Amino acid sequence: MVEIERKFLVKNEDFKAEFYQKNRITQGFLNTDPLRTVRIRIKDETAFLTVKGKNNEAGLSRFEWEKEIDKTEAEALLKLCEPGMIDKARFLVKSASHIFEVDEFYGENEGLIVAEVELASETENFEKPKWLGQEVTGDPKYYNSQLSKNPYKSW
Amino acid sequence: MVEIERKFLVKNEDFKAEFYQKNRITQGFLNTDPLRTVRIRIKDETAFLTVKGKNNEAGLSRFEWEKEIDKTEAEALLKLCEPGMIDKARFLVKSASHIFEVDEFYGENEGLIVAEVELASETENFEKPKWLGQEVTGDPKYYNSQLSKNPYKSW
Repeated sequence: MVEIERKFLVKNEDFKAEFYQKNRITQGFLNTDPLRTVRIRIKDETAFLTVKGKNNEAGLSRFEWEKEIDKTEAEALLKLCEPGMIDKARFLVKSASHIFEVDEFYGENEGLIVAEVELASETENFEKPKWLGQEVTGDPKYYNSQLSKNPYKSW
Repeated sequence: MVEIERKFLVKNEDFKAEFYQKNRITQGFLNTDPLRTVRIRIKDETAFLTVKGKNNEAGLSRFEWEKEIDKTEAEALLKLCEPGMIDKARFLVKSASHIFEVDEFYGENEGLIVAEVELASETENFEKPKWLGQEVTGDPKYYNSQLSKNPYKSW
């Protein structure tokens, strides 16, 4: 239940020539507190409730618990969420033995593109695609929960 | 998904001669905001995640969504909750055609006993047991989410 992820900015849209899956994601937060984030996500025709805890000291791993829920129920729960919905497309891109999740944001976060890679350990190496930019792992500003309150366009 | 409930204080412990079921409940909150309460509850050997919205204007009905979750997962989620766990016993008591849930609190809320009855409509009548005291429906002070932060013993 602890995830190790590293997050990066994305330099350009070259990843769009490489992705093998694309999903539309809308999500809101029942709590944006980084100590106990509660997220409602609709991903195409599926929906999830996800709870995340705080980052460990190195900022690389975070407690995460997720449960699939009914899409209609998720739509009702989204109405209860804090103001500031997140709307984005997620592209899955293979790079050697890893999969990058690349999120292109819309609405108030238009212009922001970030990529995440999940690792088996905090020291695991991975090949960096050419379009991968600056690392922003552990920077709360780039948490979706924070982007919902303080969106990219307002930076 | 909208519940209509009325809540009352309890005058004495006479209900303990009448109950047909008793459960121990421990619960914490991932959010205590009355607009979007998120509760983790362990009830004996079962566990639930519950989201509640705000009361309607009359204070009688409230959006409620509940999902059963794994008890071990609930224990992990409880560790993420805001400080202030709720510990109580719940007694189920039949009164004519209705069932009262009577909660006897322990710990920081020791001394508080409240009873709730669920109704089919806001105007439905019900028989009041003799041990039923003052109505406190819609008073946020008696929400478990608020009792976790501002417990009865501190009033």
